[in-house]
Amino acid sequence: MKSKNIHDLLPADLGAEAVDDIVRASAVRIERIVSKGHTSPDSGWYDQDEHEWVMVLQGAGSLSFADGSTVHLLPGDHIHIPAHCKHRVSWTDPDQLTIWLAVFYREFR
Amino acid sequence: MKSKNIHDLLPADLGAEAVDDIVRASAVRIERIVSKGHTSPDSGWYDQDEHEWVMVLQGAGSLSFADGSTVHLLPGDHIHIPAHCKHRVSWTDPDQLTIWLAVFYREFR
Repeated sequence: MKSKNIHDLLPADLGAEAVDDIVRASAVRIERIVSKGHTSPDSGWYDQDEHEWVMVLQGAGSLSFADGSTVHLLPGDHIHIPAHCKHRVSWTDPDQLTIWLAVFYREFR
Repeated sequence: MKSKNIHDLLPADLGAEAVDDIVRASAVRIERIVSKGHTSPDSGWYDQDEHEWVMVLQGAGSLSFADGSTVHLLPGDHIHIPAHCKHRVSWTDPDQLTIWLAVFYREFR
């Protein structure tokens, strides 16, 4: 058994947000997302079929929601975003890497 | 929408390992586990029906496996433990809180 570190292979060039799968399975997907000043495209909201739980591990970012609210997240801050709760990344720190841990999952009955 | 922080409500008294659900759904369970010198009971191995992905967020801990290997985990270190891969927590730092983030999940087809 061998471990990895969440800081492994951080992208040197961040022309776009860098998304890496940590776990990809039928019911769950765990991603590391690395941003530096990136925001969601202006064109619209994320409107996902999956529930998402996301935590900032390093850096800082803001999520905005279709109800007009904005949540600012610092390291250790986490939030649950139900499926189809429209949201966007409205800000990430331009001066440092922001590392997000995101767990996307579906319900099965 | 409101965020929480992974350091919220850290237990003052750690007579036993403290386990808190962050997300509990049909296919996935996200837990915060706080240890301070705790190890798995000597009586045996964890032998789980679920896959587990676990990361140390703070502190230090060691996982031992039935194949004789031991993996020492520091902050940011993470490891995937397949279902029925027998393991135990063989050490956690006795001098500071160790915070683990664990994602347990099942496969659906």
